[in-house]
Amino acid sequence: MLQLYFSPMACSLASRIALMEAGLDARYHLVHLATKTVADDDSDFRGISPKGAVPVLVLENGERLTECAAVLQYIADLNPERGLAPRPGEADRYRLQEWLSFTGAEIHKAFLFPTFWYKDEGSLAKPRARIAQTLSVPAAHLADREFLVGDSFTVADAHLTWALLLLRAAGVDIAQWPSLSAYLERMRARPMVREAIATETALRKAMAA
Amino acid sequence: MLQLYFSPMACSLASRIALMEAGLDARYHLVHLATKTVADDDSDFRGISPKGAVPVLVLENGERLTECAAVLQYIADLNPERGLAPRPGEADRYRLQEWLSFTGAEIHKAFLFPTFWYKDEGSLAKPRARIAQTLSVPAAHLADREFLVGDSFTVADAHLTWALLLLRAAGVDIAQWPSLSAYLERMRARPMVREAIATETALRKAMAA
Ligand SMILES: N[C@@H](CCC(=O)N[C@@H](CS)C(=O)NCC(=O)O)C(=O)O
Ligand SMILES: N[C@@H](CCC(=O)N[C@@H](CS)C(=O)NCC(=O)O)C(=O)O
Repeated sequence: MLQLYFSPMACSLASRIALMEAGLDARYHLVHLATKTVADDDSDFRGISPKGAVPVLVLENGERLTECAAVLQYIADLNPERGLAPRPGEADRYRLQEWLSFTGAEIHKAFLFPTFWYKDEGSLAKPRARIAQTLSVPAAHLADREFLVGDSFTVADAHLTWALLLLRAAGVDIAQWPSLSAYLERMRARPMVREAIATETALRKAMAA
Repeated sequence: MLQLYFSPMACSLASRIALMEAGLDARYHLVHLATKTVADDDSDFRGISPKGAVPVLVLENGERLTECAAVLQYIADLNPERGLAPRPGEADRYRLQEWLSFTGAEIHKAFLFPTFWYKDEGSLAKPRARIAQTLSVPAAHLADREFLVGDSFTVADAHLTWALLLLRAAGVDIAQWPSLSAYLERMRARPMVREAIATETALRKAMAA
C-alpha cells in the first residue's frame, strides 16, 4: 500500500487530497516537523527523507518520492481514469507542470515558507510586498475558468487549494481577489477536499491541545 | 521557430542549455529584468508574460509557457532521441520532476532569489543559515552518480548547473561539497553548456559596460 508522510495542514495536504480524489488507499504517517520525528514511534524523520520535509510518498516498491510537484503527478498517473492530470504528452500536461511550479516556488517558497518558518519581520517584509503581484496571476487566470487546467479538477487545483488556505492563515485577505475566493469556495465544496481538510484540522487541534 | 525570452545568467540559462543540447533552433529575446523591458524594441515585458519573469518560451503555435520545470520538460520532449528527460510514464520521469522542483523551490526561490533580488541582511540571514542543509541533499546524491537522473544528461542537470553557478556568484563556496564542485566542472566541460555560458557571460559584460 502507498504511504504518505504528512504534517497536518502542511503542503502534504495536497497529496492527501490527490490520493482521495484518485480513490487510492494509503497509510498516513504523521510527522512532527518541529522535532523531525515520526509520531508512530518517535523515530527520526530524516531517516525517511534527509530533506526533513513533507510530503514523502512511499511507493509500492518501497522507493520514496518527495516534492509536491512530483508526488502529485505520480498519484494522478496511478489512476488516469480520474483525470487528475492531463495524460503525459498532452499539451495541457505542461500547463499542469507550470502551475505546480508556480504554486510550489512563487507562493509556497517565496511567501508561505518565510511566513511560517522564519517568522521574523526582516524575513517577511520583502515577500509580503511581493505577494499581491504573485496572486494577481492565478486571479486573472481563474476569472473565467473553473479550474486551473482544462475543465476539470486536477492535482494543480489540490496544490493551489492548500496554498490559498495557508495564505488565509498567513493573514493575506484573498477576498481582494474575488476569483480566488470563489475558486477556494468551489474547491472546498468538493467532498474529498472537505474531508481531507476536516481530518487534518482535527489532527492539528488535537496536537495543539 | 521557438522563441526564448531570457536574461543573461538568469534561470533562463537552463532553457538555453536545454535548447542547445536538444539541437533546437530558437530566437532569443533579451529582457531587462530591472525595467521589465524587452531589449529588441524597449516594449513592456509584462505584455509577454504578466509574471514579469524569465524564462518565457514561445511555442510554435504562439502560446507562451513559463516556469523552468515546465519549459525544460517541454523542450526535452520535443526531441526525445536526445534523452534529455526520461520518457513520460517512466519511473525516472518522476525523479526528474523531483529534482526540477527541488532546484526551483529550495535552491532558487528559498535562497538565490532573496540573495539577488532582496539583498538586505534581514531577508538573507535565515536563507543563508539554511542553504548548507539544502545543498547536502544533491551533494549526497551525486557522491556516486555522474548525473542527477539515470546515467545521462537531462534537463534537471541543466537546471542544477545554473543554480550552482549562481550559488558561486552568491558567495556560497561549493568546494565544501566536493561532489557538487566535481559535478559542476563535469557539466561545464560539455560543449553546449560551455557555449551557453560563454554567450550569456559575454552579453552580461556588454550590458554592464
Ligand atoms: N519543495 C518542497 C517543499 C516541502 C516543504 O517545504 N514542506 C514543509 C511543510 S509545508 C516542511 O516539511 N518543512 C519542514 C522543513 O523544511 O524543515 C515540496 O514541494 O514538496
Ligand atoms: N518559478 C520561476 C522563477 C522565475 C524567476 O524567478 N526568474 C527570475 C530570473 S532567475 C526573474 O525573472 N525575476 C524577475 C522577477 O521575478 O521580478 C521559474 O521556475 O521559472
